[in-house]
Amino acid sequence: EIEFDPTTHPHRRLNPLTGEHVLVSPHRTKRPWLGQTEPPQPLNLPQYDPKCYLCPGNTRAGGARNEEYTQTMVFENDYAAVLPPPGPAAPQAPHPLLTAEPVQGGCDVLCFHPRHDLTLARLPVTDIERIIDEWGAIYNRRGNQVGIQYVQIFENKGAMMGCSNPHPHGQVWSLSEVPSLPATEIANLKRYALNNAPSSSAPKGPEGKACMLCEYAHFEVGMAESEGRVVVKNNHFVALVPWWAIWPFEIMLLPYARHIPSIADFTPAEKSAFASILSQITKRYDNLFSCSFAYSMGIHQRPVPSKLGDPEDGDVPHLHLHFDPPLLRSASVRKFLVGFELMAEPQRDLTPEQAASRLRGCSEVHYLDATE
Amino acid sequence: EIEFDPTTHPHRRLNPLTGEHVLVSPHRTKRPWLGQTEPPQPLNLPQYDPKCYLCPGNTRAGGARNEEYTQTMVFENDYAAVLPPPGPAAPQAPHPLLTAEPVQGGCDVLCFHPRHDLTLARLPVTDIERIIDEWGAIYNRRGNQVGIQYVQIFENKGAMMGCSNPHPHGQVWSLSEVPSLPATEIANLKRYALNNAPSSSAPKGPEGKACMLCEYAHFEVGMAESEGRVVVKNNHFVALVPWWAIWPFEIMLLPYARHIPSIADFTPAEKSAFASILSQITKRYDNLFSCSFAYSMGIHQRPVPSKLGDPEDGDVPHLHLHFDPPLLRSASVRKFLVGFELMAEPQRDLTPEQAASRLRGCSEVHYLDATE
Ligand SMILES: O=P(O)(O)O[C@H]1O[C@H](CO)[C@@H](O)[C@H](O)[C@H]1O
Ligand SMILES: O=P(O)(O)O[C@H]1O[C@H](CO)[C@@H](O)[C@H](O)[C@H]1O
Repeated sequence: EIEFDPTTHPHRRLNPLTGEHVLVSPHRTKRPWLGQTEPPQPLNLPQYDPKCYLCPGNTRAGGARNEEYTQTMVFENDYAAVLPPPGPAAPQAPHPLLTAEPVQGGCDVLCFHPRHDLTLARLPVTDIERIIDEWGAIYNRRGNQVGIQYVQIFENKGAMMGCSNPHPHGQVWSLSEVPSLPATEIANLKRYALNNAPSSSAPKGPEGKACMLCEYAHFEVGMAESEGRVVVKNNHFVALVPWWAIWPFEIMLLPYARHIPSIADFTPAEKSAFASILSQITKRYDNLFSCSFAYSMGIHQRPVPSKLGDPEDGDVPHLHLHFDPPLLRSASVRKFLVGFELMAEPQRDLTPEQAASRLRGCSEVHYLDATE
Repeated sequence: EIEFDPTTHPHRRLNPLTGEHVLVSPHRTKRPWLGQTEPPQPLNLPQYDPKCYLCPGNTRAGGARNEEYTQTMVFENDYAAVLPPPGPAAPQAPHPLLTAEPVQGGCDVLCFHPRHDLTLARLPVTDIERIIDEWGAIYNRRGNQVGIQYVQIFENKGAMMGCSNPHPHGQVWSLSEVPSLPATEIANLKRYALNNAPSSSAPKGPEGKACMLCEYAHFEVGMAESEGRVVVKNNHFVALVPWWAIWPFEIMLLPYARHIPSIADFTPAEKSAFASILSQITKRYDNLFSCSFAYSMGIHQRPVPSKLGDPEDGDVPHLHLHFDPPLLRSASVRKFLVGFELMAEPQRDLTPEQAASRLRGCSEVHYLDATE
């Protein structure tokens, strides 16, 4: 009998949030890479770029002029993916298999800071707290608009993640429908609460029921550091490489000490702890390959603030952030999720435990600020 | 009352194969693109490259030497994502949320042709027929191995799709489990057969039941060409931009004249028609932006040949190919499926009808072979 070794034997793991699997092929990192490499990033960005449409005082593509902002700045995307209500009624389906529903909403851009050359990884924690306040304000303002059912806060960072401007910024898309992925996650969280007794030690979800993510985070925090998937934690939050991670250095960030449905539910201490762990994660990311680490980040939480008190759709969600970074081996060699991944199921080349161990080994002093 | 116009109003469409939605934002193609552009492709590749590990007679990374092949060549991937049986038994889950199952199988590489500089778009149709024969042979050989439950044939084409070598080739991964995406598709095809009466005119699935894809293809083929999503068709197959396409110029290729579960079920006439439409699709793709068009392509069909006669898992699948190409506006500007797409749901910037119309307008004479 051969004994199963996750660092040698290909296997698949189940993601209980989505119901999908990931194929883990740990031995595969050994193969030589002859394919496309990413162009080196521009070094020494200026603090102010006269051609940047997000820098203070500059003019945007749509013609509007940015304020001389000193902290954060919010504006509506000049090329929004969804438009404000009222919209037309649903068209008749030409065939039962061909259905369409109109979607209304709004797309906001949030500049994190006036400095063109900084990122979350290089901002003081107090500046990150201001960004969290701004996320909360947009979540409340947009999420309380008539007809809005879902608010997605996210950040695309780095050219290889489709970001068209290095100026630190994120986006918020608000929609009249709950999109596929959060809808699936919420359905699976509900099903879990229905079918599982809560463990005695983990925080409980609404109505004293089991919360899948509270149970999961509680289990991970309790593991011996050297075997686990935890990258960094503080009194309120844990950042870990989930058991079912797809991207090489994927991170899930979530509260583990109590069930928290949204960023609007933070105590002041939680907000500070959240800002501080965001700083720690992004610094470690940059230090992993000594580069400005690309990723897509998104916040999953209660779809809109008005769902508060609804034990199912409103309170079942447990706040969590996904960080999906593409780099695999160096600042220029990424993982391509193509071919088999698009046609069959995601596949990864190192174990989540190996990735967590690498990230744990990274310093929390940003490599550009380190003095030897 | 505003009337719904799919080319103006953002809306979402349902993919009945996956149960997921795509957000369509047709007005969004107008935005300027300031982000990453793809490097130009190497022009004038040599017919033989002494450094290519897939060219006839050359030595591969693993040390083996390629035959002096004159048609196609198959070998086992030197860095396979799955390894042959026997494998270890499943490990004990450290927590009910942390499950893993071992996966066994094999990974084959199929060189389409000895010429380093050719692709499907530039191969004579008779050479494409040989590739189809080879796909059939691998599907039979691997799919009949003990313990193999699924065979995924696919091609990654182009550096931007993670392909590390321009030499024309595809891959075949065979696995002891049915991966997430085909498993979902088959479950939805079964559910459709159970819950829908077949239309009188479309071909029927097994046991005279409705086949979702036969119904869909039949409907699309019947539409007036100028309004529809059909790119090209012949007596047996249709290539169309599906109603629920995610990638800008995504194509689904499938038989519409009878229910065909796999490439092993082709009549000789169907095989020729399949080769010829593969040539037509890939030529149009190259002509769209006058470049060697990147894509991931995959074949979905009966999971393994031995499922023949099993009305559910074996005969319900209707053969279809997905082509997922990233380019959006030109040979160098792609669509990035990041941020909102990774966190919420896929979003596209032109309608499938607009994409189909563009592809219909392309010539079937390859731009490199066109003489003015
Ligand atoms: O095996 P290849 O072509 O080197 O690798 C490529 O295809 C694989 C299967 O789609 C992917 O997992 C890899 O990320 C990609 O780079
Ligand atoms: O709006 P941006 O940043 O220009 O665009 C980027 O993010 C969007 C939302 O994730 C994506 O749909 C685009 O493909 C991507 O390029």
